[in-house]
Formats: sequence, structure tokens, C-alpha cells
Amino acid sequence: MLEHLKKIVYEANMELPRYGLVTFTWGNVSAIDREQGLFVIKPSGVDYDRLSPEDMVVMDLEGNRVEGSLNPSSDTATHLELYKALPLVGGIVHTHSSWATSWAQAGRGIPCYGTTHADYMYGEIPCLRCLTKEEIEGAYEKNTGLLIADYFKDKEYMAVPACLCKNHGPFAWGRDAAEAVHNAVVLEEVAKMAARCEQINPNVKPAPQKLQDKHYLRKHGANAYYGQR
Amino acid sequence: MLEHLKKIVYEANMELPRYGLVTFTWGNVSAIDREQGLFVIKPSGVDYDRLSPEDMVVMDLEGNRVEGSLNPSSDTATHLELYKALPLVGGIVHTHSSWATSWAQAGRGIPCYGTTHADYMYGEIPCLRCLTKEEIEGAYEKNTGLLIADYFKDKEYMAVPACLCKNHGPFAWGRDAAEAVHNAVVLEEVAKMAARCEQINPNVKPAPQKLQDKHYLRKHGANAYYGQR
Amino acid sequence: MLEHLKKIVYEANMELPRYGLVTFTWGNVSAIDREQGLFVIKPSGVDYDRLSPEDMVVMDLEGNRVEGSLNPSSDTATHLELYKALPLVGGIVHTHSSWATSWAQAGRGIPCYGTTHADYMYGEIPCLRCLTKEEIEGAYEKNTGLLIADYFKDKEYMAVPACLCKNHGPFAWGRDAAEAVHNAVVLEEVAKMAARCEQINPNVKPAPQKLQDKHYLRKHGANAYYGQR
Amino acid sequence: MLEHLKKIVYEANMELPRYGLVTFTWGNVSAIDREQGLFVIKPSGVDYDRLSPEDMVVMDLEGNRVEGSLNPSSDTATHLELYKALPLVGGIVHTHSSWATSWAQAGRGIPCYGTTHADYMYGEIPCLRCLTKEEIEGAYEKNTGLLIADYFKDKEYMAVPACLCKNHGPFAWGRDAAEAVHNAVVLEEVAKMAARCEQINPNVKPAPQKLQDKHYLRKHGANAYYGQR
Repeated sequence: MLEHLKKIVYEANMELPRYGLVTFTWGNVSAIDREQGLFVIKPSGVDYDRLSPEDMVVMDLEGNRVEGSLNPSSDTATHLELYKALPLVGGIVHTHSSWATSWAQAGRGIPCYGTTHADYMYGEIPCLRCLTKEEIEGAYEKNTGLLIADYFKDKEYMAVPACLCKNHGPFAWGRDAAEAVHNAVVLEEVAKMAARCEQINPNVKPAPQKLQDKHYLRKHGANAYYGQR
Repeated sequence: MLEHLKKIVYEANMELPRYGLVTFTWGNVSAIDREQGLFVIKPSGVDYDRLSPEDMVVMDLEGNRVEGSLNPSSDTATHLELYKALPLVGGIVHTHSSWATSWAQAGRGIPCYGTTHADYMYGEIPCLRCLTKEEIEGAYEKNTGLLIADYFKDKEYMAVPACLCKNHGPFAWGRDAAEAVHNAVVLEEVAKMAARCEQINPNVKPAPQKLQDKHYLRKHGANAYYGQR
Repeated sequence: MLEHLKKIVYEANMELPRYGLVTFTWGNVSAIDREQGLFVIKPSGVDYDRLSPEDMVVMDLEGNRVEGSLNPSSDTATHLELYKALPLVGGIVHTHSSWATSWAQAGRGIPCYGTTHADYMYGEIPCLRCLTKEEIEGAYEKNTGLLIADYFKDKEYMAVPACLCKNHGPFAWGRDAAEAVHNAVVLEEVAKMAARCEQINPNVKPAPQKLQDKHYLRKHGANAYYGQR
Repeated sequence: MLEHLKKIVYEANMELPRYGLVTFTWGNVSAIDREQGLFVIKPSGVDYDRLSPEDMVVMDLEGNRVEGSLNPSSDTATHLELYKALPLVGGIVHTHSSWATSWAQAGRGIPCYGTTHADYMYGEIPCLRCLTKEEIEGAYEKNTGLLIADYFKDKEYMAVPACLCKNHGPFAWGRDAAEAVHNAVVLEEVAKMAARCEQINPNVKPAPQKLQDKHYLRKHGANAYYGQR
């Protein structure tokens, strides 16, 4: 079942250690088949060097495990809510990558200080509030997903394909698993440079809006001219 | 004698350079066989790339070398006191890993700023005081062990499986050698993110207690649901 | 056409990931054949591990693609203006390397704090202003090139073979592609040490002019005595 | 001539890139044969991956090249003055390693904040003044050596086997080439942790003198008990 998607999700997961985004098992990638209404996700707490495509777990959008002998990622309910609320999302990544997590712990969104950020993400990457006591005591992972979904559902969520969860870490997404991982790598690089940039100039201001527009639209939308289109 | 444990301790020691926790010979791992009352530890000052399982030294809890031709780690007396005072500890790691040592030199415990920390360690990782002149002049390494043992013996020491020794560096422990190394890696990662997080937001506060509880208990205790249990 | 130069430009591009200067496709190197008035540049948005010498694109100085089936780098117009205005430049590099980009985002030039900098670059590496709204809305990449060219055309641009573009990132150049890459590596290293140096001593001052002169002239000019001349 | 020492010096030089202490050719190691009054040093500006033992240059203590077809390191006159003034020194290393150079550029000595430092170096690692205009205009490299020699000749220079030259970078030494490289690696690690430690606690004080004494003497001197002695 969904053999091709399992392979894709497996390979996207294996990119996380390759790009230095995870220590141990601290990350997971999923991707959805919108036609069948099923998504594939990494199993919980399995070492990357023991992972195989067959270990991937198939879930439906009610949260039932449809195939796979292993437990799905403990963050599965978060992924599920995002797929339900954000119909253009095809792949999701969660990590504890070092710089993005440092911003999440600091409780600050990442301002757009330059074109590296603007090339991929339009404006500040938001840091969402910590869950309330009640949200934590209840369906914690689901509530994390609802919080993110609620924030993004009326926004251009494919133009800001990432967020930080306060005191926790980053989520990133894309049209598919590979693009989601790509955005997670960009997020980490942007988080690193923003922190260093503030150290070099504590009074730094975000890049001019015009420059942000230019770079985002150079790579995205109808008139994009970056790459081999 | 204890061939299996020697192999385990050897392999745990070899993880230290692999995870970037040691420069030269600046680290050591031990593990105990509680039934026999013997522990196995790395020899002192031997390069990791020349180490073999047979080089491991077997010690009893009176500090006698029971087997092995090499001198045990100069920190052996510290390990010994921890094994005597903390009966659930099965493996111990000492390193001079860069970020954790920077906190130790700074004389500060590491606050719990997020879920990466809370997943493994319950609350602040304490920084213990420097030894007194008398403690240093006397049995220095033993006194280091007594200080740590004294601090933790009435606490949930398996829930905070690490500490910093002021002006010195970190110790971490676990149920066995592999878990101790795992915790040492977590400690270094957590130390790095806490320092960066304070740089990004100098007024940052620890994560809400409820969130700390949730994440710690998600991975530990009777109702844990992370991983393949 | 220009097979030898294509190979050189290909190899110079491949140095960028090797020296850790690029993530994904965030960099490009070009080199010019002054006699023929043609330059060779990396294609736009192609992964480094799929690149081959044949993929390199040949451009003339009017901005026409003379050979190659792929689109040239989106920054081609910037390279072109530099070649036109700065006749001693034989190779150009643009990257988003992490430390240099952090300075560019911070909007600050990099002061000369020591001999590592002075050995290669004479005095502060300038940070040029952000383009105006009009310049961004118009021929953006060309205007970036005009801004750099205008700043350097009456200066000793081979003695300061790099600059930062505010909110964007670094450009570096040299007599050929290899020297341009060499200077891009130096720039990143110098940017890193300058940031750390200011952290260690917030009141640090640039190195004495006499020391800067000595080190620059030890390696450059008629009386240079570094290396095997 | 001195084939054995050439091989040792070659291998010590090759350790520099292995430990991440050099970019390009920014470092050199030498070692002396005290009986013959000759020392061997790396040639100037030759890439590490093209270096061979035969390329090493043999110098006498008057600064004459006794053997070798390549120019010796441009820092040869500095090494020479150290060998002349400090009779216990058998090997010398100069690099532009990133953290140590950042302290040198900042113009500050590195305080002893912990046992990692105290295990190898007794007390603060000094930062020596910049040369005067006259010293720079004259025999610059020789004057650098004289400055270091003058500072250390009446001190326990084997107990503080390194220094920083303001606005320049570090020198380290030892009884032989391997020990000098070892000390250069320690210096870089100590420089990194001291900078981070000050960031974590801006009011940090050096480690207590008693602890510094204990750790230094645990590894050095008549009563040392670290390692396999």
C-alpha cells in the first residue's frame, strides 16, 4: 500500500541527519496522498540508521493506523491536523534543529533580515504561543496541530511554510516531502544567520519590504525567473 | 572476567569521539555489574584510536584494580563514589564537551528552556559548587564524587541524570553505559541551545512547568507513549 | 567553445560546497575570457552534485547567451556589470555564506582586526547600501552590479577583492575563478573571526595601519616575499 | 639530512588541517635538533595536500637555509628567535586558528576558567602587545620572535606553552613537534570555551588558584598521576 509514497517519505526522513537537522530520533517527516486521504509517517523513536521504507506507517485522517507494525511518530496527531486544515500542504517536517529550536525556546519569531530568507519565506517566521495548561493536559499533540492550523488557515501558508512552537521547536511544510525538508533546511540556515546578524548589529532592522517582495517573487509565482523553468 | 561488560564499556567510550564530545583523551565511560560489585572503566590517557576492549580496567568498590594492566581513568574515584551512593546508576560518563563545560566554567546550571531538555531531564541541570581548598588538597577525585552523591542521593537522580561541576565539566549517568552516553549527548545539545536561546532573548524564562511535566512523562514512567513500547 | 574555461569555472563552482560556502544552489562562480569578450557562468538553480562542465553557460558582454542549453545564474547581470567596469577582474563569486551574509544583513562593513584579513584584503570590506525602490523594481540584478561597479571603479578593487550587499550577501573576485573562490573563503573566515572578536572585546579597534600595510605588502606587490616566488 | 626529523615535522604539519586549525596554508610547524643546532620547518605557502617530507626545509640558527629547494615559512625568523631564547622548546606551531585568533584580535589574554585549561597551561595565556611601527618596518618576523622570547625567557615557559600576538594570532610550543601541535589544539579548544563561558556569564571569574594548581600538577611534574606513567 502506497509503496511509492513510503519510499519518498523514507528518503525525506533520511535527509534530516544528512543536513544535520537531527540528533538521535528527534525529527520526523510525513507526506500525504490527497486522493486516498492517507498519509505516511516515520515510526516513533526508531534510529535513522535502522530505518527502512517498510517501517513507514500509513495513517488515515481519523488517526487510525491503516498499515504498519510500528507505532507512528508521537507527533502524528499534529501532522494530521495540519493536513486537515491546510489543503495545499503535501509534506510536513518536525525537528529539534539547533538554531530554529533556540529561537522557539527564546519565544521569538525570526525577522526577515535578508534575501536568503526572502527567497523562500515571505516575511517573519512566526513563533506561536505555548499551549495552555488545559491544552497540554488534553490531546497535547492534536492541540499543537490545531494551534498551528488556526494561525495559518486564513493566511498564505505556502508563502510562509514554517513556524516555531514556543518552548518546543520548528515545523515546516511544502507541496511534498522533499520541499518540506528543503524548507526545514532553509529555516535552520535563516535562524542561524538572524541570530548572528543581531549579535553583529543589535539595532538591525528587517530588510526593506520592496527587497523582500522582489526576492520572493523572483522564485515564486507566475513571473518567477530563478532556475530552469 | 566481565568480557561482555568490557565490550559494552569499550563501545560506549568509542561513541564519545563519534558524537564530538571529546578532544584527545578528555572523557571516560564506566559501567557496573551490580551483582558482582565490580565496575569497568576506560584506562587513563589512552588515545581512542588505540583503545581495545581488553584495555578496559576492572575495579571493585573499594577502589582496587581487579583486572587490567593499565591504570584506570584518573577520575575513577569519582565514578566509584557515584556507584556507591546512587544504586540505580548503571553507567557513568565524564567529558569536557564544549558547551556543557562552558556552562560549568560559567558556574551556572542549565535552565529548562524547552521540550528537547524536558524530554530527557526533569528541570534545571544543576551546577555544583567548586570543591574547597581542603577537598582539593585531599582525595580530590573522591571528593568530587562525594559532592555529587551528596547533592543527588535524596533526589530523583534518574530524572536529572547529569550535573555540572563548577570550573570543571559535566558528568552524566544512566541505567547502563549506552544510556549514560545518550544523556551526555543530550546534555551537550541542550547546553548549546540554552546558550543561544539566552543570546536571542536575554529575558527568556524557563518553559512552563506543565509543558516540562508533559514531555518528561511522555517518554518516562508508567504512562509513557513515545517510541516502540 | 571555451572548453578549458568551462572546466575551470565548473571546478571553481564545485569548490563552494567543499569549503562549506553554500547550501543547496546558493552560489555561483563565473570567469571571463577577456580576449574574446565572453564569460562562463553556472546555470541557475542546478544542484552541485548534478553539475557538469558542459552545463556551464557562455555569455557575451551584452548579456546574450552564446552557448548552453540552460538558463544562466539569475545573478548573471550582476557579474556582467562587474566585468565591464572592472577590467582586472577575471573571476567572480557570489554566495550566501553564513558569516559574511550575517554581516551583510547587519548592514556593517567588516573592519580589519588582524593579519588574517590584512594578508588578503587591504582595509575594511565595505557593506554597500541596499538598492532603492526604483533600482529594485527595474533591472534588479544589473543595478546590483552597477552599484558595486560604481563604488569600486575608482578604487584599488584588486586590493579589496570583496564586498557585502546590504540585506543580501557577499560578492568576491580575483584575477581568475580560483582566486575569486579563494577570496570568498578568506572573506567567510575573516567575517567569522571579526564577529567573535567583537563579542570577546566589544571595544576592539581595527589593527594598526602599519601592521595592515606590512601584511598586505608581504604577500602582494613588487616586494612580496610570501610563498614560492 | 635529518630525514627522521623531516618526517616528524611533516607529520606534525599534516595534523593542523586534520584538527581544523588551518585554512589554506595558514599555519606552520617546526622542530629542532638541539645537538646539531638545526631546525626543520614547513616551506612557505605550499598546500597541505601537496606537501611531502622532502619539502621540509632545514635551517641553522643564523637563519641560513642548509637544505631544501623551497623557501622556508615566512615566519621562520620568529621560530628561530624562540629556539635561541627558550632552550627547552623542541617544537613550535603557528596558526590562524579561529578562536585563538579571535582573542588575539580582541587583544585579550585567555583567563583560566576551568580544568581543561589548567590541565595543560598554568594560568592565563597572555596576549602580547602589537609590534611598534619601528619593529614592523624593520625585521618584522624576527622582532615578533624577540617580543615573545623577551616576555617568556624569565618565566616558566613550558608551563604556559602558548601565547597570542595582538592583531595577529597564536604561537604554541612543546618539547617536540607533536607536543607543540597538541598544545595548539588545546589552546583553540580553551579559547572557544572561554569565549562561550563569558557569554553565558559576563561576570565569570577565573577558576580558584587551588584548583588550577591541582589539575596542572596532576598531569605535570614529579607527582603527576594522569595517564600511563
